[in-house]
Amino acid sequence: MNRYEKRLSHVRTKMMEQGIDTLILTPGGAMRYLTGFSEDGHERLIALVVPDDRPWLFITPALNAAQVRENPAGIDDIRVWDDAEGWETLLASICTDLNLDIGIIGLDDNMPARFAIRLQEKLSTALLKLAGPIFIPLRSVKDNIEIASLANAAEATDSATAIAYEVCKAGATEREVANAIESHFALVGFEKTFETIVAAGQNGASPHHHTGRTKLKLGDVVVLDYGAKVDDYCGDITRTVSIGNASAQVREVYDTVYNAHQAGLEAIKPGATSHDVDRAVRKVIEDAGYGEFFLHRTGHGIGLDGHEAPNIVSGDRTPLMPGHCFSIEPGIYLPGQYGIRLENIVSVDEDGYPRVLNAEIPPTIPMVG
Amino acid sequence: MNRYEKRLSHVRTKMMEQGIDTLILTPGGAMRYLTGFSEDGHERLIALVVPDDRPWLFITPALNAAQVRENPAGIDDIRVWDDAEGWETLLASICTDLNLDIGIIGLDDNMPARFAIRLQEKLSTALLKLAGPIFIPLRSVKDNIEIASLANAAEATDSATAIAYEVCKAGATEREVANAIESHFALVGFEKTFETIVAAGQNGASPHHHTGRTKLKLGDVVVLDYGAKVDDYCGDITRTVSIGNASAQVREVYDTVYNAHQAGLEAIKPGATSHDVDRAVRKVIEDAGYGEFFLHRTGHGIGLDGHEAPNIVSGDRTPLMPGHCFSIEPGIYLPGQYGIRLENIVSVDEDGYPRVLNAEIPPTIPMVG
Repeated sequence: MNRYEKRLSHVRTKMMEQGIDTLILTPGGAMRYLTGFSEDGHERLIALVVPDDRPWLFITPALNAAQVRENPAGIDDIRVWDDAEGWETLLASICTDLNLDIGIIGLDDNMPARFAIRLQEKLSTALLKLAGPIFIPLRSVKDNIEIASLANAAEATDSATAIAYEVCKAGATEREVANAIESHFALVGFEKTFETIVAAGQNGASPHHHTGRTKLKLGDVVVLDYGAKVDDYCGDITRTVSIGNASAQVREVYDTVYNAHQAGLEAIKPGATSHDVDRAVRKVIEDAGYGEFFLHRTGHGIGLDGHEAPNIVSGDRTPLMPGHCFSIEPGIYLPGQYGIRLENIVSVDEDGYPRVLNAEIPPTIPMVG
Repeated sequence: MNRYEKRLSHVRTKMMEQGIDTLILTPGGAMRYLTGFSEDGHERLIALVVPDDRPWLFITPALNAAQVRENPAGIDDIRVWDDAEGWETLLASICTDLNLDIGIIGLDDNMPARFAIRLQEKLSTALLKLAGPIFIPLRSVKDNIEIASLANAAEATDSATAIAYEVCKAGATEREVANAIESHFALVGFEKTFETIVAAGQNGASPHHHTGRTKLKLGDVVVLDYGAKVDDYCGDITRTVSIGNASAQVREVYDTVYNAHQAGLEAIKPGATSHDVDRAVRKVIEDAGYGEFFLHRTGHGIGLDGHEAPNIVSGDRTPLMPGHCFSIEPGIYLPGQYGIRLENIVSVDEDGYPRVLNAEIPPTIPMVG
């Protein structure tokens, strides 16, 4: 069996366990996991239909048909609709053929309501559930090939760090810094995982600041969050720098975040849970008096999607397992002042200990510009 | 009343007409239309809840709270959830407060199933519908301020054309050309509307080709599709060029697409429907013998979203109205050879005739490189 046949077989086993008769997946990580193919259909329906015991098939608008036909899984039942007729007639006939109205259907977690609600209206006697629980146990544990891809993605991501430090200068805008990072990825042939975040000064106090026209100035603390993809697997890193000298307070906050990150790494060991790692990280920040300024979970899984299972979050007693890959990214966000976040990606090795995929985090705040 | 109060009032009128008690909107065009705010929440729930007769409110994860608090509509009821507790408890309490389980709820067309299906499970006695029909009549007719923004977005988009022609050379990769366009937008401070498409040679036969590492070579026909945003309004343009001299066949196909585009413009007049414009465009291509190679509708509306109502598509008898803004983008896609597409954005003026917002399309194929 090839990679995709194996995955399909595992997915069908999970479908049986969870009582799902048919999966309907829209573009994204799950479709890519099963078929090697995914392409943004925008408002047009592209879907993979996976019955539990009959051949799978693709639904595609005419303008993506050539791409869908080249799907690496070799699925050759491709049903094409065009803009004048719309997708609803085609989908309805497939629903009838497959008796979907008497079944339990697992929908892609990312399927837009425009499709999900219409499906529910059409299949008023079917039960719609989320497909996520089918995929979480399968996708969250990476095999060696996947970990190698994630390591390559981490290396590709790291390759932008020197450039980011170089262009972080007083007078440059956040957007220019982001652009230098993204241009580098583009020129060496990597796609980016997400829109690069460059957050200068008080913008850094918003963890997901929208990179804009703010100019960097001397003394600013700047959060840099970026990632490149390799073989469809995602990289993700966060570094924080100071433009010129950092104040004693900034250095202290940086040290706290750095130590929290290290505590997270140390907490990854046989028998540890997601909760344990979050606790270890959070404790360092709380002990330093900044607990209320750490606004988010410690980390997220990473793979074909930039954010996927397992989450590293308080209360989640999922045991960490060999093959789990995730971020450790503590942050302290001081409203009106600045933010500091430090993120690397780790995988859990066969013995249950962490392997860090990114370059080492600088133990003191880099002063640039 | 300010802009957002007016829009809310119009939306509530439509809610009453359509029997929708409450809207729940996730980030995207509808949220931005109503509040001036939108921010990608990724897998975390950011939502705007609009009851028909009680104050509206935002739901946000802690890490976006600072951004949500600055929403231009001045909504000050901001309910914050954090990663450890999750969004479901907060949403459940809001559903109870607002008695959503006995109502008809309009969901954002783009709401991911991960939220929509959970809502349906929680509110098993509520009826979930799509919010789209509330917004289509309101958002598809632009006021003068919106048209000015779209004209600015078209001008910003046009500003990349000379750069695109300059970098289209034998030896450059598609990705490098796309990057030059996107870098230009970034450096002058514009966000892009969508991922730039650069499709060389036979890649151009896929209308939504995924820009890659293919090198341009002498004689290639190259499709260039890009757009910049101004004031959150989207630009969108497609040009097609030849690297070096174009063959007689390429020139003939280009002429056909150009003439089809012009026929579309001429079809926009008082009383015309979306269907009429599509027909006029399609007829030129069919008459030239390429009908089967025009794989998509003639155009799409544009505004806060890159694709929105009205669609310019066969069978749609919606009359065009002053304030409608949309693309005219005929294309011919020859498998294994190349594609040619030409797109400009037009608005319908007060008299029912087109105003072209982009620069003129070259009447013969530009030869570059």
